[in-house]
Parts: sequence; C-alpha cells; structure tokens
Amino acid sequence: DAWGWPAGGARGRAAPKGARPKLGPEVMLTSERYGVRRLPFSRVSDGDVAFFEQIMPGRVITNAEELKPFNVDWLKSVRGCSKLMLKPQTTAEVSEVLRYCYERNLAVNPQGGNTGLVGGSVPVFDEIILSTVLMNRITSFDKVSGILVCQAGCVLEKLNEYLEEQGFIMPLDLGAKGSCHIGGNVATNAGGLRLLRYGSLRGTVLGLEVVLADGSALDCLASLRKDNTGYDLKQLFIGSEGTLGVITAVSILCPQKPKSVNLAFLGCQSFAKVLETFATCRAMLGEILSAYEFMDEKCMELVERHLKLTSPVTDSPFYVLIETSGSNSTHDEEKLNNFLEQAMNSGLVTDGTVATDEKKIKMLWSLRERITEALTHDGYVYKYDISLPVGKLYDLVTDTRARLGPSAKSVVGYGHLGDGNLHLNVTAESYNHFLLDAIEPFVYEWTARYNGSISAEHGVGFKKKQFIQYSKPKEAVHLMQRFKAMLDPKGILNPYKMLPSSS
Amino acid sequence: DAWGWPAGGARGRAAPKGARPKLGPEVMLTSERYGVRRLPFSRVSDGDVAFFEQIMPGRVITNAEELKPFNVDWLKSVRGCSKLMLKPQTTAEVSEVLRYCYERNLAVNPQGGNTGLVGGSVPVFDEIILSTVLMNRITSFDKVSGILVCQAGCVLEKLNEYLEEQGFIMPLDLGAKGSCHIGGNVATNAGGLRLLRYGSLRGTVLGLEVVLADGSALDCLASLRKDNTGYDLKQLFIGSEGTLGVITAVSILCPQKPKSVNLAFLGCQSFAKVLETFATCRAMLGEILSAYEFMDEKCMELVERHLKLTSPVTDSPFYVLIETSGSNSTHDEEKLNNFLEQAMNSGLVTDGTVATDEKKIKMLWSLRERITEALTHDGYVYKYDISLPVGKLYDLVTDTRARLGPSAKSVVGYGHLGDGNLHLNVTAESYNHFLLDAIEPFVYEWTARYNGSISAEHGVGFKKKQFIQYSKPKEAVHLMQRFKAMLDPKGILNPYKMLPSSS
Repeated sequence: DAWGWPAGGARGRAAPKGARPKLGPEVMLTSERYGVRRLPFSRVSDGDVAFFEQIMPGRVITNAEELKPFNVDWLKSVRGCSKLMLKPQTTAEVSEVLRYCYERNLAVNPQGGNTGLVGGSVPVFDEIILSTVLMNRITSFDKVSGILVCQAGCVLEKLNEYLEEQGFIMPLDLGAKGSCHIGGNVATNAGGLRLLRYGSLRGTVLGLEVVLADGSALDCLASLRKDNTGYDLKQLFIGSEGTLGVITAVSILCPQKPKSVNLAFLGCQSFAKVLETFATCRAMLGEILSAYEFMDEKCMELVERHLKLTSPVTDSPFYVLIETSGSNSTHDEEKLNNFLEQAMNSGLVTDGTVATDEKKIKMLWSLRERITEALTHDGYVYKYDISLPVGKLYDLVTDTRARLGPSAKSVVGYGHLGDGNLHLNVTAESYNHFLLDAIEPFVYEWTARYNGSISAEHGVGFKKKQFIQYSKPKEAVHLMQRFKAMLDPKGILNPYKMLPSSS
Repeated sequence: DAWGWPAGGARGRAAPKGARPKLGPEVMLTSERYGVRRLPFSRVSDGDVAFFEQIMPGRVITNAEELKPFNVDWLKSVRGCSKLMLKPQTTAEVSEVLRYCYERNLAVNPQGGNTGLVGGSVPVFDEIILSTVLMNRITSFDKVSGILVCQAGCVLEKLNEYLEEQGFIMPLDLGAKGSCHIGGNVATNAGGLRLLRYGSLRGTVLGLEVVLADGSALDCLASLRKDNTGYDLKQLFIGSEGTLGVITAVSILCPQKPKSVNLAFLGCQSFAKVLETFATCRAMLGEILSAYEFMDEKCMELVERHLKLTSPVTDSPFYVLIETSGSNSTHDEEKLNNFLEQAMNSGLVTDGTVATDEKKIKMLWSLRERITEALTHDGYVYKYDISLPVGKLYDLVTDTRARLGPSAKSVVGYGHLGDGNLHLNVTAESYNHFLLDAIEPFVYEWTARYNGSISAEHGVGFKKKQFIQYSKPKEAVHLMQRFKAMLDPKGILNPYKMLPSSS
C-alpha cells in the first residue's frame, strides 16, 4: 500500500497537527473482539525482566503507558497487552533474547515501524515486543554496484535520503516511508509505488541476516547480484511476517537516482478508459514508466474533505497518476508529451496536469499517497488489498458498494493498477461485526472466483490468516505449516499470525 | 552463462556441421572419475519397466544406444549409466511416476534440455531419467498482463518466438536457448544475457507447479504480479536443481518486445577501461541499457580459430558488448551516440562498431555467445562461474593464468560484467586430475577471500557440491539439508547433487 503517514508522524516523534488519526476510545483487545484463546506460553516473570535488563540495560521497557502505542496498530483495529518491550542494538543481542525466550517458552512479537495493515505487527496477548528501533545503522554502501547493507531498523525514508546524496534511490517507496523499517518491509515483502519499475523485494534483496527462533543466527548477507549456491534460504524469510525468524540485517540492490522525473495527473471518465490509458502509456512510455496509480472520485472526496487537499484536476469519476523516471529529460518529456497528446486527442483523458518540479510532484503524489490517512479520519476502516486481473479490478468495488448499500459510510477503490493491485476500503462510524460479516467472506470469494490474491502486498498478519485458503491450496498451506514447525517448533515467533492453526 | 549451442544443435534434432563438440572417446563414468559410492536405492526391475510402460506406453526408453546422449552432459565431462528414461506428458503422469519411485525407493534424475554445465542434469549411476521433453505445451498467454503459463519442457527459444509474434519477449536469454527447457532454466535459476535489464527469475517467475518426491502435486501456479499470502514456496524450487521437486509448469512475467535494439561492440586497452566504460554507459544509457558483456582477447582468438568467426573490432586486449533496448529509436540512438562520442574522446575505447540491423546484431552477439562452444573445441574445459565485486573480477583470471603457466592450454575470462559475473575457463588437451588439483580449491579460496560466489548462475550440480561451503556458512548448508530431508526424506530426487552428504 502507499499510505499517508507523513515523515514526522512516526510514533515517538513529534507529529504535525492533524497528521495522526483521531484519538478515540481505547481500542478493543484483539483477543476479545475476535475471541482468541491464549496459547500456553510462559508468562513474563520478574526474573525474566531482570535477565533482559542485564543484557541490555536501559533498553527494557515495562512501563504500561510507554508500551501503549506498541500494543496497538496504526489503524487502531487490533490491540494486545504486552508488558515488555526489548530494544536490542545488535544481532548478538537478538540472538541472546531469542535463545532465552525459546528456552523459557516465551512468545515474541518482532516489531519494526509498526505500520502494518493486517494486525501482524502488534501482539495479540502478552507477547514480548522485540523492536528493531535501535538497530538503525548503515553498514556499507558500494557506489559501483549500488548495493546497500544495513541493519533491519533503518527507516525507509532515511535510507532513501542517504542514497540520494550519492546518486541512488531505494528500490521501494511507500506512503509509510517516514516510519517503516526496512526489516519490516522485507518481512512483509512490501510492494509500494516503485514495484512496477524496479520489481519486488524478491529480486532486489540480495542477502539477509536472520535470527531463528532458537536464537541461532543465519548469515545469508551476501552482497552479490548473482549467487546460485544452494537453496535461496533468504526467500523464505522475505514475506514471512516475523513467523520464521527475526530479520536483523538486509543487503539490497539500489537503482541509480533518475535524472529526470515527470508526473502526469489525469482524469478519466470511466474505468475502461483508465485501462486503455494504461495500455497506451505502457506502449508509448516504455522503459521510463515508473508508476501507474489510480483512484476513484470517492477517494478524492475523502482527501479533500479530511485532509483539506485540493486537486488541480476535478470532476472525473477516476484519476490516474503516471510517473516517468529516466536519464534524459528532453527525451522523457518528448515521450510524455506524445503520450498525452494521443490520450487527449483520442478522448481517453478529459482533464490533466503535468509536473516536473519537485514541489508540484510531491503535492500531486500526496493526493494518492494520503488516501489511507484520509480513510482513517472517515471512521473505522475495513481494508482489502487484492490482486486481480486488471480488467476485473474495479468490478469488485462496484459489486461491494452495491452489496453494502447504506450500511457502509464509504466504499472506495484505488491502487497500483500497473501491478493489478486494488486497495478496496470500506468505512463505517465504528467497528461493527454485522458489517464485517457482510464484507467477508464475500470479498474473498469474489477474489477467488477470478483467481486473485486476497493479499497482494499487505500480508496476512492476524486479520487474514483464516482466509489464506481462498488464495492457496490446502497442500501449500500444509507445507507452510511444516516449514513453520521445522524452524520454530515451539511456535514462539509472532504467534496467532499468518497461518491458520495446523490442527 | 551464455553459450554457443546454436538452435539447430539440440539433441535429437539435426545439428548443423561443426555445431556439436567433437566426438571423442567415451567419457569416463562419473562414479569412476570421482570415486562416488552408489547409495542403496533399488535397481530398476523388469516389473518396474512394465509398470511404466503401462502408464505411458511408447514413452519408456530402455534401449542403451538411445539412452546414450541423455547419460552424458553437453560438455562431455560427466557420465551416468541410467537404463531407463521416461517421457511423461502431463503433471498427473509425473505424479504417478514419482509416487511409484518413492514407494519403490528408485532414484530419479529430472532432465530438461540437458544443457547444464555443472553435471546436474545427467545421472551419476543408474537413476531413472525423467525427461520433460514431451511436456512442451503453452497453456496461456495474456497480452494485457504479459503473463505466460506453460509446461516445463517448452524450449526457451520457441517460447521467445511465440511471444515475439505477440509483441513480447522472454525475460531471460542464454546461449543454450535452442535446447534448454524453461523448467530446467527455473530449476537452475538461470541468469543469462537479459538479467541486467529484466532481473532474475526470482522476480519474473510468478508461479510454479511442482511434483514432490512422494508424488504429491503442489499447485502454486498463480498468474498474479503480486501475492503475499503465506510463504513463497515456489522460491525454494527455483534454483533447487531438481533436488526438492520436479517443476512441471511455469507462470512467468514477460516484458514487451523493445521497439528499438542497438548493439555496440568495442575494444578496450585494459580492464580498468572496461570498468570505466561500464560506469560511463550506465550513467549515460540509463534505463535503455540491456546488456554489458565483456571478453578477453584469448576468447576472441578461440572463436576465430575454432569457429572461423571474424570480428570487425580487433587488436584489443578486451572487448565489450553493449546492448540497448528501448521504445524510441531516435532517442536510443541519440543516447548511444552521445555515450560513444564520450567513450572515444576520453580514450576509454579505442575501436568499435555499432549495429542496428538484426543480422549484424546477431553476428556480433555470436562472438560473445559462442565462446563456450569454441572452448569445447579447444579441449577438455574446466569451467568456473564466479560472482565477484566487479573491480576484482579480472584479477582472478590473471592470477589463475600465472599459477597454471604452461600446464593449461588456455585460460580465458568473459562474462556478464554488469552483474559482477565472471566465466573463468581453463582448457587442456584432456581431463587431468593434477591440473584440476592446481585449479581447485585455489579458485574457490580466491573467490571466498573477496566474498564472492563460487556459482553465480550455473548452479552447484555434481561438480561443485563439495565446495558450497566456500560461499555459504555451515549453518546455511545444514538448514538446506534439513529442507531436503523434509521434502525428500528418502533422497530419491537427483541424488549426489547440490548438497554435500549430510553425514
């Protein structure tokens, strides 16, 4: 997802006014809302706290008030009751912690920037929160190869700023960049806004260092573009959402910073025209196309109403945002102009604006990037992150809207059209189990009917784990459970998440 | 690797004169040359043959003469003595075969086009050869998304021809394209000539169908650009060299066919200039750069002597091949000309030629693509496929040449410089154990000293399995062995390959 938590809005830092979602009443405990039973893990004792205090003095948090924001997700949809957070600085410390927890049968919830959208990053019960917040050191960057090696807790935006100074960029970009940690990005296999151009983390992540459930460290932190010596173990941890190991360091291939970036923000009169515009720009912009995003008019209403943003393009049922990134501004602008002329003349697009300067580009991007933020101001948000064949993408929004009628406040659709990724969001005044039942499994069944995925990039976390079978055959889920049992036989790592219970 | 087996040279089809390596005396049995002990698998009985004949009549090969080419690798460096080859047409048949073999404890050697370079694709003893040659059906191609779904035995070049008719190309290209199967490409995680531009198979392969050792089929054949529902099981099979399962079908994302392709073939006076030329062209060609290959003058001598090719560029210690692929020929040529002017004026490049028409492009590519073929005409070939930081890449060739002196016939270096991938090759009149001892582990130790990989893209197969620890820590190798034991507890799939024995 690309969502709108501005850089300054990270937990623990001063948030600009209005950037954080409204503070409402205390979020209901996940265990109560969803009726979850605690697994028979040990409970944290005073002796445990004393042990941790000894190995990482001053970095052991037990204060209830201090723990609060780490027990609840950014969407304020799930809440745990952890009584202990640990802030290791090194892989050796993570190893020590896990070795101890494994021995003591204490459950652990690895946490990065806590920007996840499926309830994967906060405890369900009293799991120990293992935060990567202090593991924020850059180990090396090689300007010849473009390979960055860093600790898992580096904030995505900080990494990008560091790279930009040297003429490079991170291969991924997402709205949560100001808060999310690269380790969390990898653990979630985050997609985001640049995937269309630079591919997924499965291609760009070259190496990982991971600590397994029993505390043993696995060093697969290679810095090579190509390495075919044995099974690619790191892939198992990419997208494992902290259930197989704790990612402590990442080696990643970074592209050169494009010399020229252009943005077009356009209005289309139908979704069919959104699709046709995509086909046209893919052909005419070719290798310089770096993003093709879309949003419906409901999204625009929400960012205008809740965030007071104004769009220079108006009165269209759909909006698309097209970004080009290239090495020659003259060539790029010529390509873009040719495309725009064609799109306007053939009636694909009825209104639009183009930006080449950074400030206007940022402003236009924010219309798209801050939709998620705007949604949180609209009420409780039911979020769906669906992969579908592009031709079917918006039908799901229309069908859901028709099904829910006035029982939903807003039903909106936006997302990474170029990757076949729809973000379907439903809002209501507050959480309501009847509305949830009207949406689920309807949305999942609909998605399965067209061989889509019920999670394109957000992951499964807590909220979708019972629905994984809509996108994966039972043999595959069973094999996943065997991997989990092999790597974490006591199940202490991020329990209650990702996989349905194997019983 | 990109190597020179022309399209017509595939086994079982008429080979053009001179395209195949010289027929010499019978290759020594792998088990004898390397002193391997047979594991206690069952031996194929008449009853087994009868069973297979019943499930796939006419597609069960037991004739010794017919089996010959499938028992020996293309390099004529390893040879097994399988007495049975099976040619299933469907996944159900592969399942039936494996279920039976698993029960009977019969070892199985999955085989695609048998173009592997590390002895991974032929039996060591009497393993049953399970060939994908008849699994060559294209299931679907979606022109909107560019996603191709096909059976594992489709020949890479045929797929590419099929796609080109529809305005797309395969995301990988290698010299063996006329023979290699897509399933084998995926099982090897083949790299090749387009990796620089389109990334590795880990990013482009979207789904796999795999039959496990016990015959159960695993359907992960998704056709979605993004899918984050659970662990990405398919990744384990990509690059597993047939040791974890038999890939029966592949879903792969294909890029659009570039509208404009240009090639520059240049001479450089030193390796330092090869590197500087790379940095310059990467900056100036940016997003249209699709290949940066290099070869030394020894390579050029060999393709000229053994294949009678002539190069329009001469008298240089190093040659580089730069390919651009883009959507606008005017823009692309302008970028390329600017770069060439800069490279010539600053003395990076002393001679060169540019091609835009397909015929000349093919001719220039063949100078690079057919090096491997030329090497086989030079004698027995010791092949090394190394990843290294680009700055150190050629030092390994120089050091190896100095070390071996006149005991080697030729020591040559070429490869995918843009990916940090060196192909170091040593030839001798015939196989010689003393020479092997002089090269190994020297080359592996040298590589490990600079944190390189002893296999960038060829895989580990039979020949490198004892050396995997030069590139992977023992904890990683141990974990691989646990995965192998979990998925193939009897070890029937491609035994003697990839992993050192776990004892």
